[in-house]
Amino acid sequence: MGDALGSSVSGAAQERFPRKLRMGMVGGGRDAFIGAVHRRAAMLDGGVELVAGAFSSTPEKSRASGLDLYVPEDRIYGSWEEMAEAESQMPEDQRLDFVSVVTPNHLHHPVSMAFIEKGFNVACDKPLCHTVEQAMEIVNGARDNDIIYAVTYNYTGYPMVKQAKAMVDAGELGEIRKVIVEYPQGWLALPADSDNKQAAWRTDPARSGIAGCIGDIGSHCENLLSYITGLELESLCAHITTFVPGRELDDDGDVLLRFTNGAKGILTTSQVSVGEENNLRIRVWGTKKALAWTQENPNYLHILSNEDPEQVYKRGNGYNVAAAAAATRLPTGHPEGYFEAFGNIYKNFTDAIRAKLAGVEADEIVRDFPGPVEGARGVAFIHKVIESGQSDVKWLPFDFQV
Amino acid sequence: MGDALGSSVSGAAQERFPRKLRMGMVGGGRDAFIGAVHRRAAMLDGGVELVAGAFSSTPEKSRASGLDLYVPEDRIYGSWEEMAEAESQMPEDQRLDFVSVVTPNHLHHPVSMAFIEKGFNVACDKPLCHTVEQAMEIVNGARDNDIIYAVTYNYTGYPMVKQAKAMVDAGELGEIRKVIVEYPQGWLALPADSDNKQAAWRTDPARSGIAGCIGDIGSHCENLLSYITGLELESLCAHITTFVPGRELDDDGDVLLRFTNGAKGILTTSQVSVGEENNLRIRVWGTKKALAWTQENPNYLHILSNEDPEQVYKRGNGYNVAAAAAATRLPTGHPEGYFEAFGNIYKNFTDAIRAKLAGVEADEIVRDFPGPVEGARGVAFIHKVIESGQSDVKWLPFDFQV
Amino acid sequence: MGDALGSSVSGAAQERFPRKLRMGMVGGGRDAFIGAVHRRAAMLDGGVELVAGAFSSTPEKSRASGLDLYVPEDRIYGSWEEMAEAESQMPEDQRLDFVSVVTPNHLHHPVSMAFIEKGFNVACDKPLCHTVEQAMEIVNGARDNDIIYAVTYNYTGYPMVKQAKAMVDAGELGEIRKVIVEYPQGWLALPADSDNKQAAWRTDPARSGIAGCIGDIGSHCENLLSYITGLELESLCAHITTFVPGRELDDDGDVLLRFTNGAKGILTTSQVSVGEENNLRIRVWGTKKALAWTQENPNYLHILSNEDPEQVYKRGNGYNVAAAAAATRLPTGHPEGYFEAFGNIYKNFTDAIRAKLAGVEADEIVRDFPGPVEGARGVAFIHKVIESGQSDVKWLPFDFQV
Amino acid sequence: MGDALGSSVSGAAQERFPRKLRMGMVGGGRDAFIGAVHRRAAMLDGGVELVAGAFSSTPEKSRASGLDLYVPEDRIYGSWEEMAEAESQMPEDQRLDFVSVVTPNHLHHPVSMAFIEKGFNVACDKPLCHTVEQAMEIVNGARDNDIIYAVTYNYTGYPMVKQAKAMVDAGELGEIRKVIVEYPQGWLALPADSDNKQAAWRTDPARSGIAGCIGDIGSHCENLLSYITGLELESLCAHITTFVPGRELDDDGDVLLRFTNGAKGILTTSQVSVGEENNLRIRVWGTKKALAWTQENPNYLHILSNEDPEQVYKRGNGYNVAAAAAATRLPTGHPEGYFEAFGNIYKNFTDAIRAKLAGVEADEIVRDFPGPVEGARGVAFIHKVIESGQSDVKWLPFDFQV
Repeated sequence: MGDALGSSVSGAAQERFPRKLRMGMVGGGRDAFIGAVHRRAAMLDGGVELVAGAFSSTPEKSRASGLDLYVPEDRIYGSWEEMAEAESQMPEDQRLDFVSVVTPNHLHHPVSMAFIEKGFNVACDKPLCHTVEQAMEIVNGARDNDIIYAVTYNYTGYPMVKQAKAMVDAGELGEIRKVIVEYPQGWLALPADSDNKQAAWRTDPARSGIAGCIGDIGSHCENLLSYITGLELESLCAHITTFVPGRELDDDGDVLLRFTNGAKGILTTSQVSVGEENNLRIRVWGTKKALAWTQENPNYLHILSNEDPEQVYKRGNGYNVAAAAAATRLPTGHPEGYFEAFGNIYKNFTDAIRAKLAGVEADEIVRDFPGPVEGARGVAFIHKVIESGQSDVKWLPFDFQV
Repeated sequence: MGDALGSSVSGAAQERFPRKLRMGMVGGGRDAFIGAVHRRAAMLDGGVELVAGAFSSTPEKSRASGLDLYVPEDRIYGSWEEMAEAESQMPEDQRLDFVSVVTPNHLHHPVSMAFIEKGFNVACDKPLCHTVEQAMEIVNGARDNDIIYAVTYNYTGYPMVKQAKAMVDAGELGEIRKVIVEYPQGWLALPADSDNKQAAWRTDPARSGIAGCIGDIGSHCENLLSYITGLELESLCAHITTFVPGRELDDDGDVLLRFTNGAKGILTTSQVSVGEENNLRIRVWGTKKALAWTQENPNYLHILSNEDPEQVYKRGNGYNVAAAAAATRLPTGHPEGYFEAFGNIYKNFTDAIRAKLAGVEADEIVRDFPGPVEGARGVAFIHKVIESGQSDVKWLPFDFQV
Repeated sequence: MGDALGSSVSGAAQERFPRKLRMGMVGGGRDAFIGAVHRRAAMLDGGVELVAGAFSSTPEKSRASGLDLYVPEDRIYGSWEEMAEAESQMPEDQRLDFVSVVTPNHLHHPVSMAFIEKGFNVACDKPLCHTVEQAMEIVNGARDNDIIYAVTYNYTGYPMVKQAKAMVDAGELGEIRKVIVEYPQGWLALPADSDNKQAAWRTDPARSGIAGCIGDIGSHCENLLSYITGLELESLCAHITTFVPGRELDDDGDVLLRFTNGAKGILTTSQVSVGEENNLRIRVWGTKKALAWTQENPNYLHILSNEDPEQVYKRGNGYNVAAAAAATRLPTGHPEGYFEAFGNIYKNFTDAIRAKLAGVEADEIVRDFPGPVEGARGVAFIHKVIESGQSDVKWLPFDFQV
Repeated sequence: MGDALGSSVSGAAQERFPRKLRMGMVGGGRDAFIGAVHRRAAMLDGGVELVAGAFSSTPEKSRASGLDLYVPEDRIYGSWEEMAEAESQMPEDQRLDFVSVVTPNHLHHPVSMAFIEKGFNVACDKPLCHTVEQAMEIVNGARDNDIIYAVTYNYTGYPMVKQAKAMVDAGELGEIRKVIVEYPQGWLALPADSDNKQAAWRTDPARSGIAGCIGDIGSHCENLLSYITGLELESLCAHITTFVPGRELDDDGDVLLRFTNGAKGILTTSQVSVGEENNLRIRVWGTKKALAWTQENPNYLHILSNEDPEQVYKRGNGYNVAAAAAATRLPTGHPEGYFEAFGNIYKNFTDAIRAKLAGVEADEIVRDFPGPVEGARGVAFIHKVIESGQSDVKWLPFDFQV
């Protein structure tokens, strides 16, 4: 190594917390992808340990997975119902500080509600659930039970996304006029192999809900756009397509957007765009300046204007805003990636739990992680886009309100 | 210099033509931008000389401009009507081989028709004219009078655009599923200065026609998309906006596209996207491969697939198709740009004239330049987009037929 | 998330190991940078726990740091000597599986030898130590005591570096002719602040050794070049400079290289190149193909030839070699960075320990991490470069032999 | 087109010059590459016509080439000696304003001297000639005969190179500490085909002189470095190689540089680096800021510092310096390339001739083109590098003085 960061290495406060937080997990067994991401993200800063879980829909697989992960055998469960029941009766010094829900989408709601009702904090993968009604139950349940609830829209964890948001918030771009957010992938360009578990559940309405591509990655677009710009959607016009024969859900979607301030936008997403990997990208043009960020090269933020040379903001520098600096673990030039961004959702979520345990107010930086309201808005968005895709009416109003 | 091209330097046939072609120009006086581009493009390969012109709407300016350009004084005209009349009576050994029309849009039709009817070949800037009816007059006039007529959709002149087209034509991408073509600019983000002639006429309905941004640069998008993919538009859904207060024409437009083969697309264009320069970019995804090309870095073509590493095709290499090689003047690594691409429209246009003068058939590579049918389709597209932008019906059919 | 990796997620063997490995640490207290990197790297895959340490040169700071890290109080030591003594007497079921040495350079040798002699496996930061004699003691000590010893030349942990090495090994580039490896940084362009601990020890001969920039980052260049190409250095010619007034060690060095096979190279490194972050980059040209890789955008490997389009290899795809796939935790398009690469050194190092514990032979992929011989060669390189920098003889032979 | 440049379109003064300048050419026949470049460059702005030439070493080929180029038959010559004699007797109203010398290197000196002595202005390709003595004859001859003499180190014609020079001159980078200039090509990686004329003469000592790669492209590096930084070379240490068996001249060279102000540098160049096209690139680090520019993407200039975001300067914007703006023909985002840069050498050279003809002083912007002193320095550099490559002495002083 040949660089110094010093003060911008985060986590001092966290590391001084008197004990590691205790994490439980529902889903995330041997064949799962996103569960392993949640574990690495949660434990990246050394302040969390995994102590319980129901890792699979079959008890045998759950047990095998739990042993892989060094979870004590008596806290590996054969079902999430069993886990919720048993864990709710643990003594205080062993009680879970939070539960991560990383199942296929259709279980997000019942699992979340079970743990919410027993008083556990929850981190849940996106999209939050299948229906707006379910989403509102979670919103209300979390609020009523004083639950800290995070939805892992992980792309908002990138430091340069936080930099972007801060610059918009500060008015540096002027009034926003136009936004283009795109998210092409190519991995579902062919009918899914029957042995590809990731593909299988994502293209199955029973487990994924009413939307495929729009639900899986379109919702990331909506969240990223809202997070950075703060714009409120007024109406939309969607063009939704299923390209792969035999597929039941959409695999490509383009949406025209109108915002309440008069701004406009395009959201385009695809899982059949061959050669694309995970190419989430956002561009925002204001009256004064514009910004561009792309997930595959996430340590850079481009700022454009008509008057000045393009500026390339880089992670880890003195000119970064505090929220970006707090989300940074490495000096500039030492690339951070997907795990670190995902870890930033967990960092703030767990710091919020620590603050709650310590009886103090979490500060503004810590409170910056997506919660159930953002999750519910995402579900409403998915429904409205699918409705528009089936409609001959050009503009459908988007009227989500909490 | 330290590289060798040899055989791929084009123009051997042209240079052997017994004389330079004689060019006339309407428009393109001292304050004009695009006229100077046409002149450099036409004369880039050394086979054309400018010998006559009506360069401005005022005789004094026309004369001053003509003298700047070393045009013989007796062939500098005070109006295009005068020029058409006088030049039609020139003896054969002085007669113009073609006339370039580089006026504001509203004059494209009358000037073109005047010269067509007197038997002159014409190169006209885009968009072709204001109405589809005018466009069809030009199409029919050119055909009936055996006129070689080019519309300078110059972006199809880039070698790597020709490479892209050839790869699509050869089926390398498989069946096309999706296209995104975008063209953001920022130079009209503010109300135009009264002394900016370029901005003034482009935002004036009397001179630009019914469309602003869609007409000026949206038409380039439509042409580039059609050229590369060969897809036929079936219907469209447009979101057209005027952001700058007091402006009469659109300055931003997004269009959802449906093609007759089931493919879909997005066309997005803007002249108020601050910080954008001339950022025309196209991406095409097929069932097998995808391509991406951007005008600001035009010497590269990116080919993507799910199976193989990304490939970056570069101009001037042995693996380029013949049409790309013929459009190349410099060895690989020696960047070519806008003038050379524009020059390729003129190269093929003038080679077609040379073939006609020699009484031979122009070959396929030479015939590859945009003509009045492409121009007419562009006009039809502009009208349909503006109509859609004002409509509550989601999809309007696009039914252009020649 | 919206992608599937499945089989290329590494670590199956590791996760099935019956217990977490026990890690101790020397150095890496509250103000340290690289210690935190080692901890995250070691624990990234969930198979390691930190259970003991001497984290600082003062007992108070060591204790505070250990508590931050949830290390049991009775295994936090006030000095590394004390730690070595006490930990060597731990019962088998608590005995450390390895010790990470993350002190300033001058302590690498004595700390390593103390733990080697007590039979502990060691992971040590680079450069290995101050003198070649010390280095050979470590080489011999590790061999004689059957110690698994890693030197964290972390940049060889990147998947695309492994891809590069494999392609060179397979002869895809032909015979190597030329290599350029460069590593500019800018963070020491000014005299170090007295309160910048990272800068302070790196510019202090007592703690850093005879070399500054060449030792700190030049040694990474030498290692990366050797790892990818396998070339053996025959002689070198160095131009070594100290730009910042008052600095005792070099802060910039350029070295011409000759290899035994007739290839040539340039190694250039700087810590006063303002605006540079951590811009390690390597290019290798063979008789058939060339490669280029840059650390700041590490998920891509560029392959060039005279015949074919440039190819961009990307991490996480089916065409990656097995060693690259095994070093990959995320699907393509989900960027991995510095921690993951560093973690790959630890992954192989700890998998080698697990194999040793299990009494089996580690496979070729697992054995691929830098050891004491590479460390010793790096020390010899540093000395030869500094010697050359002070010499009027053009070429000094490099005669390192183990 | 959709952008406005207006005032930054150059050439107003030039176009008002009462007549086109008359150009002659020596070399540049049908098989030549660089001759065609000179012609396009000279005529790009419409103010030059080609009226005479000795285009080849054989009268038949010269005549055929001249006819291709529409040169009047009576001014096509069978040899440059014949041309010099005949053209010196032309009446004033037909007399050549300048002669372009685009022969293989060995003829640069005799041809230049012949035309200089007859009072013609000359533009000569680089390197200037074979020996320093020849070079000084040209320097003195041009001075004594009041000749305007340009050496086409064309890469200094790029607008962003002029921007870079201006920023260094203004002190924006602080004191220069380090420069790396590199120029790898791959086209001579194999023994040259016998029918590749470009390769043939460049690898033939009789026509190229004592150096191959160093003479052909290394001299561009030296000139670009000097132009941008103004640094004076104090001594150098070269590593010169011939990789291709049977080749008589060098095909790869690396040179360490020391400048009189204490700065250091690396110049590296190759014609056997497979996959490289024309990858001239320069980076300059000062005490305050750094810059980076690359010829293959020439419309951008990167400015780096330790304090601020990276800045990307783009051609054609309001923030460009006057010299860059004057070298710009197209609005920002409309890429310019190699021809335009080469044309800028001719633009200034011919504007200087126009000023001389008009009896006025050329302004500073016009006077900015490489002349015989730069050419002589380049020849001295080539000789010193080759001498160093054969020497065991580490540093050889560079003592060129005019």
